[in-house]
Parts: sequence; structure tokens; C-alpha cells
Amino acid sequence: MSEQTLALSPIVELRAPYLLFLGNERSAANAKTAFGVRDWRPDRCLAQWRLSEDTVSLGLRDLNPTQAVQSGAQSLLIGVAPFGGQIDPAWVEPIVQALNAGLDIVSGMHTPLESVDALRIAAAQSGRRLVNVRLPRGQFQIADGRKRKGKRLLTVGTDCALGKKYTALAITKAITDGGGTATFRATGQTGIMISGAGIAIDAVVSDFVAGAAEALSPDNHEKHWDVIEGQGSLLHPAYAGVSLGLMHGSQPDAIILCHDTRRTHIDGFPSYVIPPLRDVIELTLSLAKRTNPNVRCVGISLNTFGMKDDERASVLRTTERANHLTTFDPMTKGLAVAISQMGLL
Amino acid sequence: MSEQTLALSPIVELRAPYLLFLGNERSAANAKTAFGVRDWRPDRCLAQWRLSEDTVSLGLRDLNPTQAVQSGAQSLLIGVAPFGGQIDPAWVEPIVQALNAGLDIVSGMHTPLESVDALRIAAAQSGRRLVNVRLPRGQFQIADGRKRKGKRLLTVGTDCALGKKYTALAITKAITDGGGTATFRATGQTGIMISGAGIAIDAVVSDFVAGAAEALSPDNHEKHWDVIEGQGSLLHPAYAGVSLGLMHGSQPDAIILCHDTRRTHIDGFPSYVIPPLRDVIELTLSLAKRTNPNVRCVGISLNTFGMKDDERASVLRTTERANHLTTFDPMTKGLAVAISQMGLL
Repeated sequence: MSEQTLALSPIVELRAPYLLFLGNERSAANAKTAFGVRDWRPDRCLAQWRLSEDTVSLGLRDLNPTQAVQSGAQSLLIGVAPFGGQIDPAWVEPIVQALNAGLDIVSGMHTPLESVDALRIAAAQSGRRLVNVRLPRGQFQIADGRKRKGKRLLTVGTDCALGKKYTALAITKAITDGGGTATFRATGQTGIMISGAGIAIDAVVSDFVAGAAEALSPDNHEKHWDVIEGQGSLLHPAYAGVSLGLMHGSQPDAIILCHDTRRTHIDGFPSYVIPPLRDVIELTLSLAKRTNPNVRCVGISLNTFGMKDDERASVLRTTERANHLTTFDPMTKGLAVAISQMGLL
Repeated sequence: MSEQTLALSPIVELRAPYLLFLGNERSAANAKTAFGVRDWRPDRCLAQWRLSEDTVSLGLRDLNPTQAVQSGAQSLLIGVAPFGGQIDPAWVEPIVQALNAGLDIVSGMHTPLESVDALRIAAAQSGRRLVNVRLPRGQFQIADGRKRKGKRLLTVGTDCALGKKYTALAITKAITDGGGTATFRATGQTGIMISGAGIAIDAVVSDFVAGAAEALSPDNHEKHWDVIEGQGSLLHPAYAGVSLGLMHGSQPDAIILCHDTRRTHIDGFPSYVIPPLRDVIELTLSLAKRTNPNVRCVGISLNTFGMKDDERASVLRTTERANHLTTFDPMTKGLAVAISQMGLL
């Protein structure tokens, strides 16, 4: 993709390979983004840069920005979440150093990199980009509702943060591993950092959400699957509108419902009960068919993290029987079989 | 409301009374906003300012900014829509003159007033505000889904631009005329200019739409009605997410469905058919009950503009019988009766 196209497209595109920046973070939990990128896209990860010896390690080789650029690195990806989403003052000098070495800077923080004078100036002088993946730029179009070529799968959820991104990544990999063609389409900052492109859909002005979703999965080959990372939940009192705009613009042929059986109500909203899955599926399809009358729910993805094997097997079996739908946990084995059962290959 | 509160609130608040700016517009159709404000809120309209003798007239007295300020005017309200939503170069000098005379400037244009250097500088020097009602400022909260006190009515539609704002304004007036208490809550630029406050909901970042809607109709007296102007349509392939976020945050006790029986499909989207009204009502209520389980559809507002009397009477009667719901055209007589039938007084 040419420089000009990159500059004009409202879809964020990251230049790989990356030097993964870990600051002096000691907690692996706070470096979730860096681990996610390493796990899902090792081909895009050149090296890591740690500011001290006791900083958490991804197991990649340690390079500084100058060394990394000599080895072909294009971007410094900030892989740690700072406290409160602000830019740690201790990071400013290292980031300036990376810009001067010739790297773009990629951040998933709420605070734009440009808000720090030293970073804005160094970027202008070096001609490198400050990429804030949470802040979409450029002009999206209003959705046109036109049916596009190719096939689309959207992961939807009964709540936030229960596996929609992971499910979409795992499904994409399983389709590709099985000999099909599929592209993961990222709609949140971590997903964008993992895939190298996407739109932080919840940061788009509401009028343009469906249009942004249309732009994210353009016409494609007839047998190609765009596997789109869902956001929020149609059941969520704060985010249902985001989920609906994303779904309408995505025009999914297939949806997979993501759930955690231990989640009885919306996290943080104790009066908002999660209804039976069959009701959630019916509601979802009744809305999704507006932009794709042929939409089907093909399966249920359960988050069984922390369950013992027999408990997991039991909950998968019970859910599958109750809903007559292929039910799987994408973190465990058996996804190849599920993909086939769901007709995705 | 104090200056400080005005500055901090993300809800736009306009200072009245207004001097209505008509530029040198000769077409009444292009001065729709000015006519709307004059019709609905004559108490907030002090005078008009026309740049030439053949400019369209609202029938108000003609004053220039200096005269208007001497008579108490607080804001110059741009009541004409320029071609393409841009600021007409011929307006820059007059607007600067209004700022220097001591008026805030209120614009519903897509282009921010600040984007014109001369206006930005004059505003800074005069200490007056440039208010772009289409560009919400400040920080909205994420919706909390908590039930608020007071009663809320939301107008929803089968499409855009068929009478949701007009219906909400007329219902508000009818409740007040009948001795009840009601507040019109504006969610679009024309509504904001008419009521003097509100949020252009389609310009809010999608994550915050439901939260913005919650902020727009805060706790109120038990018998008070907030009558909220709907936006878009749950049936619209581009805007359904906006409509859903607004509805969830509004937590309506009552909805009124606005429709035009001549509209068979979404305007500009010929493949998107408008389904039977009973299906639209069922879909709407199934979604609205998520944040207010007691929501009811109390009536249907039909746009019968241009119909002959017998045709209008026939279509109102047929729709009422088919749906077993009070059906009215808010532009014609009989709203007092409808209000009572719908249990709004």
C-alpha cells in the first residue's frame, strides 16, 4: 500500500516489522498487548526494547531503536498499558530516540501522542508518524447498505471482554490452517496492533459507525471470509448502539455468539441480567437480517478459562444441546472440527 | 445557569434572546431553521438581521448587531443553511461585526466557526463564544443504565426526516397547554436552535451516545415529561446504531412512532423496505425494554403533509384501526384529544 493511500485512508495501517516497547514494566499482565502481538503475529515482531534488566520479557531478542532500524524495523509499538492511559514521562525520551532512529510510533493509549510537545516536534523533524490507534482519522462515508462480495463472520457477545477478539483471531487462523482464505478485521486497539490494521469502532462518531464497518470489510473473493472482531453487546445499556452499527455495516453472513456461562449479568451493571442464549441469538438475527437477510448463527464460543477439564466438557456439551449449535472454546483444541461443522471451510 | 456550568457541560446551551441572521438568502426553504425558531420559540427571538432588502423576512423587526445588543440580544443565530455546509465568505465580516458588538455566534453548520481565522480572532478579542451546535464539546460519561425519576417520551421513526422533531415539539406544547409539565429535549442542530439547549447526538463518539442521552434527560419531578426528539431509525442501514444508543440512554416510558404512509422504503436506499408498522413497533419495544421494562408505544404520528382532507382522514383512520393505537398528524388539529387518549396528561 502506497504512502498516499496510507495517508488518505481512515483505516489505521501499521508498518511492520515492529520493535515492541516494554518500558520498564515488570508485570506481564500490563504487557498484554505486547504478548498478544507476539502470540498472534510473530512474523511482524522483530525484537523487543526493554529499558531495564528486570523488565518483563517476550522472549524476543533485545534491540535498541538504532539496531532495530538497521535490521529493518518500521515501527515502535508501545506494548504496555501505562497507569490511567496517560503517557509515562519516563517514556518521552526513549520515544523521541525511536523517532530519530526512523521508527513510526504506535500507541493504543487514550492520550494522543501529539499532546506531548517533545513527541510532536520530534515526529515533525524526523518525518515519522505518530499513530494513535484509538483515534480514527480521516473521513468515513455514511453507510450505503449495498451488499458486498465475499463472506463475513462477526463475533458478537453477551457482554464486553469475554472473548470476541480471541474467537475471531482463532477462527481466522483455523480457516487459514484448513486451507481456506480469511482475514481478521480489527475493531479495537489491541486487535489493530495484532493485525496491523483496523478501525477503533467505538471511537468513531456515531453517524459514521456503520459506514466505517462497511469500509473495514470491502468487496472480496467469493469464498473469502472476513472475520470481524465484535465490540460491546446488543444487551449492554451503554454500548448496544456501537454493536448494532458495527453489525449493520458488517452485513455478516454468519455470527458466532461469545459467552461465559459464569457471567449472569452485564459486568458492572448488576440489574442487567443476561437472558437465555436462544433469546440473544433471536434478537441478534432479527436485527442483523436488516442488512443481510441470509444471516445465520453458526456457533457459540464459550470462555471456559480456569475451568477443570470435566467441568469444561460438561458446559460445552450442555450449551451445545440446549441451543442445537456447534459450541467450542477457541482456547482449547478441536477448533478445526468446529470450523468444519460450522460450514466455514 | 452560571457561566462556569455552561462551560463545563457537554450539553450545548444557547444564550437568548437571539438576533436571527438571514444573510442575503432569498429562499424561505433555505431559512428553515430561522422560521422554525420563530414559530416554536417566539419568546427567544428579538429581531432579524438581513443584509439586503430582498432577503427573506421572518416578519420580525430589523436590527443590526449594535442595536440588537442595546435591546438585550445575547446571540446571533445563523438561521440560513449555506450551500454545502461551508461558511459563506460574505458572512465573515458581518459575523465579526456581531462578535465585536457583544453577541455569541450560534451555527448549525458542519464547518466549525473557529476554522475561519478572522472569526477565531474576533471571538478571542471580544470574549464572545463561537457555538457550533453540531460539534459536541466536553466529556460525556459512559451510560450507567440507572433508572431516572420523571417520565420520558421518545419519538422514533420508520425513516429520517418525516416528523420526529415536529412531533416532539407539538407533543411538548400540547402537554404544557393542557396544564402538564414537559420539556422538549433536542438531539439535532435545528432542535437545539429551537429549544436553546441539547446535544447533536449523531456527532457524539459512538461509545458515549447512550451516556449523552442519559445526560440529556436527567432526574426530574415524578409527573414531568421529557419529550425527546428521536434521530434516524432502527430500520436505517446507516443510522440504526445512533437510534438504539439514543433510545437506550433515553429509557423512554412511552414511544410514539412517526411515519409517512407514502414512504415505502428508506429514502435513498431503495432496497430497504419499510415493514408493517406493527413489526416496527414490536422491534422497537423489544429493544427499548432493555433499559425500561415498562416502555409502551402510545401512538402513531403520521406525516400527511400535502394530502387532501378526506385522504388525510382516511389514512389516519385506517392506521389507527390497523394498529389499535391513537393516530394523529401533529400539524393538524386534534392533538389535545390525542394527548389525553395517549395518557400523557
